[in-house]
Amino acid sequence: MREISLKVKVPSSRNAYYPIVFGNNHWKQTLASFVENHTFSKVIFLVDEQVFSFWKEEIEQFPHPEICILPSGETSKNLEKAMEIIGFLTRQGCDRKSLLVTLGGGVVGDLGGFVASLYMRGIAFVQIPTTVLSLVDSSIGGKTGVDTSYGKNLVGSFHFPSLVIADVMFLQSLPETQKKNGYVEMVKHALIADEGYYRQLMVPFTEKEWPSLLWKSCQIKARIVEKDPREHHLRQILNFGHTLGHAIEHAAGYEILHGFAVAWGMIGEAFLSVKQGILRQDILHTLIQDFKKNSLLFSPQTILKLSWEDVRYPLLHDKKNIRNHIHVVLLEKIGQVKHTSCQYSYPLPEELFQEAFVFLKNIAEEWDESH
Amino acid sequence: MREISLKVKVPSSRNAYYPIVFGNNHWKQTLASFVENHTFSKVIFLVDEQVFSFWKEEIEQFPHPEICILPSGETSKNLEKAMEIIGFLTRQGCDRKSLLVTLGGGVVGDLGGFVASLYMRGIAFVQIPTTVLSLVDSSIGGKTGVDTSYGKNLVGSFHFPSLVIADVMFLQSLPETQKKNGYVEMVKHALIADEGYYRQLMVPFTEKEWPSLLWKSCQIKARIVEKDPREHHLRQILNFGHTLGHAIEHAAGYEILHGFAVAWGMIGEAFLSVKQGILRQDILHTLIQDFKKNSLLFSPQTILKLSWEDVRYPLLHDKKNIRNHIHVVLLEKIGQVKHTSCQYSYPLPEELFQEAFVFLKNIAEEWDESH
Repeated sequence: MREISLKVKVPSSRNAYYPIVFGNNHWKQTLASFVENHTFSKVIFLVDEQVFSFWKEEIEQFPHPEICILPSGETSKNLEKAMEIIGFLTRQGCDRKSLLVTLGGGVVGDLGGFVASLYMRGIAFVQIPTTVLSLVDSSIGGKTGVDTSYGKNLVGSFHFPSLVIADVMFLQSLPETQKKNGYVEMVKHALIADEGYYRQLMVPFTEKEWPSLLWKSCQIKARIVEKDPREHHLRQILNFGHTLGHAIEHAAGYEILHGFAVAWGMIGEAFLSVKQGILRQDILHTLIQDFKKNSLLFSPQTILKLSWEDVRYPLLHDKKNIRNHIHVVLLEKIGQVKHTSCQYSYPLPEELFQEAFVFLKNIAEEWDESH
Repeated sequence: MREISLKVKVPSSRNAYYPIVFGNNHWKQTLASFVENHTFSKVIFLVDEQVFSFWKEEIEQFPHPEICILPSGETSKNLEKAMEIIGFLTRQGCDRKSLLVTLGGGVVGDLGGFVASLYMRGIAFVQIPTTVLSLVDSSIGGKTGVDTSYGKNLVGSFHFPSLVIADVMFLQSLPETQKKNGYVEMVKHALIADEGYYRQLMVPFTEKEWPSLLWKSCQIKARIVEKDPREHHLRQILNFGHTLGHAIEHAAGYEILHGFAVAWGMIGEAFLSVKQGILRQDILHTLIQDFKKNSLLFSPQTILKLSWEDVRYPLLHDKKNIRNHIHVVLLEKIGQVKHTSCQYSYPLPEELFQEAFVFLKNIAEEWDESH
């Protein structure tokens, strides 16, 4: 597999771009030549604990890394851990010219990016995603954040990496469920932007075909965030499936993986699109069949356990709400969402979300009984 | 006094500017018309406790403000307080379209700006400085931050306000020492950029002349940060006096006011400039005489109490250090600093800083004995 790269515009400076370099077993060389071409005072690695235990020898081949290990899991993504990492950087004598390299999934990337955005008002960072989800989604677009008692990602910033190294080698250590978790976001990219890509994703494909599909998703996401880095308009379409999806994820106490919650969310929001007369009913049914066939409607028991009240609370406190109105991205057809030149998400009344949730519960029930 | 305003470029967007509106007793009207011209979902005030107790009636004249009161003093500028304010915003139902208005000195502005930069990855904020120091310095330039156990402002961000309202009315409630504290930064602006302004500041002036002098400083600072918002080059010159100044302030446990520490710092760094053959010796002596005459070399006892070791530690951990080298801005003459097109601060060996500190101690001793 050859290395390919994509330039993404940095929003805060007129002519600056950062590359996403995609390849297989190329991270050390790509990172080394990046470091050589800059004059960083120090290079610090922030590595996920599980990734480190699997890839220790590989990571330690990089010359003289100072490594900070982060316990795996979403519970690490908090302010206290951010401050611990800042303490580590201080003790290592990091200054404004130091570089932070994050190696791990979304938690390491979001938390590391958050720290890099705040340490001395911002230092450079390189992101090396090691999961499908972070490779196609969270590593692209500069969103950083931590979870607080007030909400997930309620506290965060936009801070763009200097370089993203997407090395599919790291996916070798990823469990199948985690792969599927990320695959849902690829399906979302297809649904909002590219019908042909959706067809590609829905037919069985081999291990060898993964890289080109991953790359396709990286391109779709990069092109969207580049046009609207701070989510004022176009970038909102990436939230398709995420209004109901986030609410389900939160209501389930994060026992359901993000991707699977979003899969349920996409069906729910496709239902809302039908209700609004925007999407054809038969396309909704095709989606449901496709999602079932590809095992994306995972964990129906989780949906069945939830009540409308459980889901209602996080919906009413969604970060995307404006003036207490719940907003949602609506699907027009496969590969296209409803939008005007200035509106990409739409406020809908609470009652419709309740109907959508009941619709999801019915699917979950049928699906659960048939298995 | 007529209202005047200044447009400052927002670095992250190509054609966006934010205004600094300068006047007397105009804040309510200026803020009201700004709010009217936007569609904020909520307006929240963050107000310094002392400012609120003095200006309560005035502030409550603004229609329906939700007010969060912040205890006065630098100790409020920490992550815990930031999280408390975030909790307040959450409870008030603030969303991405809400506005935070800060009313107070540097602490309220820096902390409020920090919260505004992180809440839901950034909301709009308006800064209303109520001290000389915040009016001419911290309210201009988008630097936000909190103090942590690892250092002052070690954690922060760049987040530019949508509007700054510089209302000299609020200075009525300011003690004389606090006025002088801010006046030092005005002298710094003059020293690095405008000899004529320096002369104006050094002769006795009346209360009536304050506004035009304050306005001059706002202009100098705004023009500098506009050219280099993220302190990659030119903006560094604003750090004149701040390498030794910060170290003294830190070593004294913040018992000396920021401005007075910077006044000592400027003399120390002018001494370094002489040592480097950049500044004429007689100009250094003029500066010392001018500073003494204008009571800027305040609290010589504080300097006398400090040892070199006390000052050395914070110098070695200065946020502006690069690769462990202490950096300093050097004065060439009154109104001009040494620089090339790419270098605005210079690394000097530790020993020279020790010499400069001894020089300051000698001045402090003479000054103390003569009073």
